[in-house]
Amino acid sequence: MKITRIDKSRIDQADLENPVFGTQFSDHMLVCKYKNGKWEEPEIKPYGPMSFTPALHTLHYGQALFEGQKAYYMSDGTIGIFRPEMNAKRLNHSAKRMFMPEFPEDLFVDGLKQLVEIDRAWVPKKEGYSLYLRPFMFGSSEFVAARPSEEYIFCVVMSPVGPYYAGEVKVKVEETYTRSASGGVGSTKCAGNYGGAFFATDQARKEGYTQVIWTDHKNHELIEESGTMNVGFVIGDTFITPPLSDRILAGITRDSILTLLRDTDIVKNVEERPIKVEEVIAAAEAGTLKEVFGMGTAAVVSQISTIGFRGTDYKIETPKDGYAMKIKKALTAIRMGDADDKYNWMVRL
Amino acid sequence: MKITRIDKSRIDQADLENPVFGTQFSDHMLVCKYKNGKWEEPEIKPYGPMSFTPALHTLHYGQALFEGQKAYYMSDGTIGIFRPEMNAKRLNHSAKRMFMPEFPEDLFVDGLKQLVEIDRAWVPKKEGYSLYLRPFMFGSSEFVAARPSEEYIFCVVMSPVGPYYAGEVKVKVEETYTRSASGGVGSTKCAGNYGGAFFATDQARKEGYTQVIWTDHKNHELIEESGTMNVGFVIGDTFITPPLSDRILAGITRDSILTLLRDTDIVKNVEERPIKVEEVIAAAEAGTLKEVFGMGTAAVVSQISTIGFRGTDYKIETPKDGYAMKIKKALTAIRMGDADDKYNWMVRL
Repeated sequence: MKITRIDKSRIDQADLENPVFGTQFSDHMLVCKYKNGKWEEPEIKPYGPMSFTPALHTLHYGQALFEGQKAYYMSDGTIGIFRPEMNAKRLNHSAKRMFMPEFPEDLFVDGLKQLVEIDRAWVPKKEGYSLYLRPFMFGSSEFVAARPSEEYIFCVVMSPVGPYYAGEVKVKVEETYTRSASGGVGSTKCAGNYGGAFFATDQARKEGYTQVIWTDHKNHELIEESGTMNVGFVIGDTFITPPLSDRILAGITRDSILTLLRDTDIVKNVEERPIKVEEVIAAAEAGTLKEVFGMGTAAVVSQISTIGFRGTDYKIETPKDGYAMKIKKALTAIRMGDADDKYNWMVRL
Repeated sequence: MKITRIDKSRIDQADLENPVFGTQFSDHMLVCKYKNGKWEEPEIKPYGPMSFTPALHTLHYGQALFEGQKAYYMSDGTIGIFRPEMNAKRLNHSAKRMFMPEFPEDLFVDGLKQLVEIDRAWVPKKEGYSLYLRPFMFGSSEFVAARPSEEYIFCVVMSPVGPYYAGEVKVKVEETYTRSASGGVGSTKCAGNYGGAFFATDQARKEGYTQVIWTDHKNHELIEESGTMNVGFVIGDTFITPPLSDRILAGITRDSILTLLRDTDIVKNVEERPIKVEEVIAAAEAGTLKEVFGMGTAAVVSQISTIGFRGTDYKIETPKDGYAMKIKKALTAIRMGDADDKYNWMVRL
């Protein structure tokens, strides 16, 4: 790995107290180019502009994907990253489906660690704050023809972020717009999945909701995801989340929560199975729908207070000591090094 | 419109005899920026690199779309553009669905005309050659957060291209991968639709096919498009093409061909209706499947010689004087100004 350090750190101009998500970037970035069928030597160098012609392939044909994860101070003062090898694997899952080259997984993890180490002054020390890591990859050939890019750039940038606070989360069951289809790219973190979702989200916001709950591509009967998060329901004493498929992002937080729930007595039963909107609504009406929450890197869990379905708002409890918060607490304890890391999830610098 | 001319044209370094599609670009480009909720003054300026930080929004969230059309010499020596106002409308259809700002349609057409006029030396004079125009738009804010871009760039670049020759076109009916779904973005020319299609296309190529025929998202029973073209079938003396929907690109060539076919006696009947794979296969087996062809800007019509379905290859005639070639001839006559342009399709410089 080639390393070129910045002449003078920009840290003294940074706002680590009240960072706005994804708007300030640390001193360095990692860049690795793919040319002639292979990855060149990666380079850590000062964060800064790249120059492209307007024929940049990804602007036209959308071979672009990303990952997202966090580095933060653990209780013992070391810096940890949560399950980065899972992000490496998922990046390559996305890459394969988008017909992009896979990036070596050990280099992915090692690159993140070296990059965070060099910019460790950018990891906020306040509780709940972290350095958001954004690995991404895009087609960088410069031609305009509907065939795959021949060159690619893998890059990692980092941005200090504060604790996630979504406010009250009201979601609308989306029955018109579709996020993904079987045989499509819904299980990837390709850029187009996000751009394609903004319109439906905006429609929901105009109706007073925070986000949509995506439903299946065939009949809009099955629940898929909530916004950009996986979604879980506690009905009675059973936790239910839709099963993974090529329509659903394999969330690392989702996987971690399933592991924890199966290993603890927070809920009695854990089910990964298709769940219909009508089952959720029936449970809400019957009073057995205890909690609903999104699961993702940003918030770990994000409690949902309202589900809007065909004009009716169903209210859901968001207790401070309920299922979601117990899960968050258990997961946070592992992340902070305060609980036994029996799954070896933490990678320390 | 601000105009900044190049100091010295690069035309003497260009290969207009054997141009490789989309790899050489003319002297100038048109750039228009969207900031603070409005489009700034467009500028025609020398083609060249743009500088962005790695936080460029579209690299992460895929708000990106394009159009494609051609300028070429007509028989009387004027330069014409085919139905540019249709591209302007479709660009805005794509923009709306991708939650991007619409671009003024009159400015789109006027901008193309002015840009082609300035670079008229780049319009190849050889028959069948043209200057390919590539309008495109992308989210250009520089932050990394899953919300819509606030700034956008509309740009037009131009590339001299030769006549389209695909060779023998063998298509495979795709029953595993999906291009689009109802409620999705399939009717737009968003970048992600193309990046998401490369994998399935490559799989088909490995099996000896040129392209796929996409089928519907629900059961893979209905025919949708062929590769990046609309598709038409002549069964008996009836032309059939799938109806427009939010899963299918509203091809301008498709629309023009439908108009011509309804107005001439090339075929007896014209039907826009859902068509099942099984209907096409049954017609092939019964000997009533006369011709199959793709319809698009690149080739106008592209005859398909083979349809592969579940391991069986169905051969189709590709006559030089059949339906497809009669359609191409009729359309080309209008494009060249050799036939009455009763629909006012040609916009002359």
